[in-house]
Amino acid sequence: MTIQALYSGREDYWPAYQAALEKAFSTHGLDIALTRDAAPQEVDYVIYSPAGGLTDFAPFTKLKAVLSLWAGVERIIGNTSIQVPLCRMNETGLRDGMREYVCGHVLRYHLGMDRHIHGATWDGITPPLARDRTVTVLGLGALGQACADALKGLGFNVVGWSRSAKDLEGIECLHGNAGLNEALPQADILVTLLPDTPATQNLLNEETLKLLPKGARIINPGRGTLIDDDALLVALDAGHIGHATLDVFREEPLPEAHAYWAHPNVTVTPHIASVTRPETSAEKIAENIARCEAGEPLLDVVDRTRGY
Amino acid sequence: MTIQALYSGREDYWPAYQAALEKAFSTHGLDIALTRDAAPQEVDYVIYSPAGGLTDFAPFTKLKAVLSLWAGVERIIGNTSIQVPLCRMNETGLRDGMREYVCGHVLRYHLGMDRHIHGATWDGITPPLARDRTVTVLGLGALGQACADALKGLGFNVVGWSRSAKDLEGIECLHGNAGLNEALPQADILVTLLPDTPATQNLLNEETLKLLPKGARIINPGRGTLIDDDALLVALDAGHIGHATLDVFREEPLPEAHAYWAHPNVTVTPHIASVTRPETSAEKIAENIARCEAGEPLLDVVDRTRGY
Repeated sequence: MTIQALYSGREDYWPAYQAALEKAFSTHGLDIALTRDAAPQEVDYVIYSPAGGLTDFAPFTKLKAVLSLWAGVERIIGNTSIQVPLCRMNETGLRDGMREYVCGHVLRYHLGMDRHIHGATWDGITPPLARDRTVTVLGLGALGQACADALKGLGFNVVGWSRSAKDLEGIECLHGNAGLNEALPQADILVTLLPDTPATQNLLNEETLKLLPKGARIINPGRGTLIDDDALLVALDAGHIGHATLDVFREEPLPEAHAYWAHPNVTVTPHIASVTRPETSAEKIAENIARCEAGEPLLDVVDRTRGY
Repeated sequence: MTIQALYSGREDYWPAYQAALEKAFSTHGLDIALTRDAAPQEVDYVIYSPAGGLTDFAPFTKLKAVLSLWAGVERIIGNTSIQVPLCRMNETGLRDGMREYVCGHVLRYHLGMDRHIHGATWDGITPPLARDRTVTVLGLGALGQACADALKGLGFNVVGWSRSAKDLEGIECLHGNAGLNEALPQADILVTLLPDTPATQNLLNEETLKLLPKGARIINPGRGTLIDDDALLVALDAGHIGHATLDVFREEPLPEAHAYWAHPNVTVTPHIASVTRPETSAEKIAENIARCEAGEPLLDVVDRTRGY
């Protein structure tokens, strides 16, 4: 019997996703009718992003799973009309893009590139080597691990921190509140890659920002809610934080009047650090449907108590 | 018998090199008197950079080797008063610094960072993944290989080119004139890491620049002589070359009036891509002296016919 899958994502992405999904379904030998307008009671799988506008899953009476196109699920996890497994996106394109963004901006800070890009003089200031620079990565999920590994590969001294204990080769892994108090003071450059949960909101606040060494640089490609924006602006103005590169914000697009846009020590990037790529994410969705149809456990099922 | 070593390099670097060299000599169990003013006829080894001003080696009648602190030896290779082996510097600090500089600027171009650093709007333009971007590395010596490997590790599609055939895992290696004609048209980003020899001077000229795809970006941390400056400026003004980041120049410091400083599509960095670090280079010099004293072959001996 033909499986029914509903695409409920950004309309302008539909052609790209339609092509990529149909190709991936075919590769997996799946007989799936992919549409944007199936009758809810006939839908087996919803391929979801918040942009699709779907909020009431109650009419989807035979639904088997909701497959998110986004890695962050904070906008759907509290939706009580979903009674089936909800899977986060976790795919190589998302991971690789994040790794490239993080390595790029860490190296930018490390090399002092902005001075040269703005047009320096022949000052002859030589940057130290990466091995003399510590990068602290907050969050050691799939994305955080990929970034920590790549930074280690580039020679940086990497400290990782996560809520629960983790063990990564060649990386000093800290966890819990005590670990955070130890991880932050070491960070010449801090990368925040935590999910948005009640436990991570405003993790970087007036108090924790003070734990960073003077002049520390912050890169946030994780979630806008991780940072108390007012506290960061105060720390930047005081010169305690040297510079921040922010890719995610509480409100997106970042409002034109927001102080971040004009701040001389803030770089805004428009939520580009990591985007789900149709080709690789379609493969992941096809794999999860194939697993579900074969009665195997789904991959990357969201744990609603943990929040991601 | 005590070995006599003469330091003939930058005066302001002497304290750092003195400390680092004495430490390395001691680690290798070498009994060496290190000075800046030994009588030439008593000197066994000269530790050399052009900044030391030494040009006549004839009085050094018992000299065993000249050990260069620089990787590039174009300013000493033609000195016919040297009748003993001349060794280039090849050390981990030099290599690591170069790798960091090259990866940083490649990622900068890849991610379109300058737009954000200058203050972009919320354009939402997402960069492609590194695997969809080709970086061509000209020169596959110790530095070129380290850069090619690191770029591959970051996910880039890497094409390497050298004068003679080389074989690097995971990297398409081309060589010779025919190989150059094949390597250049593939380069979204070109990195030039060749030594300065008669064969490499103006390798990037009016003709070869045309082989690059429109909008290609060039990173030159190798030698200033590799590029015909006038031809590059013409290609930049015509928009054929999108941007260039240049670290080395025919005249250094780059004269204030040079067109590169003011060009909107050129970034000048002040010869910082890779500098010899006292600690790691001292270790390399100690190792070479130990080898020579033990009658073993020296490392990184310059081939005067090849030019490096």
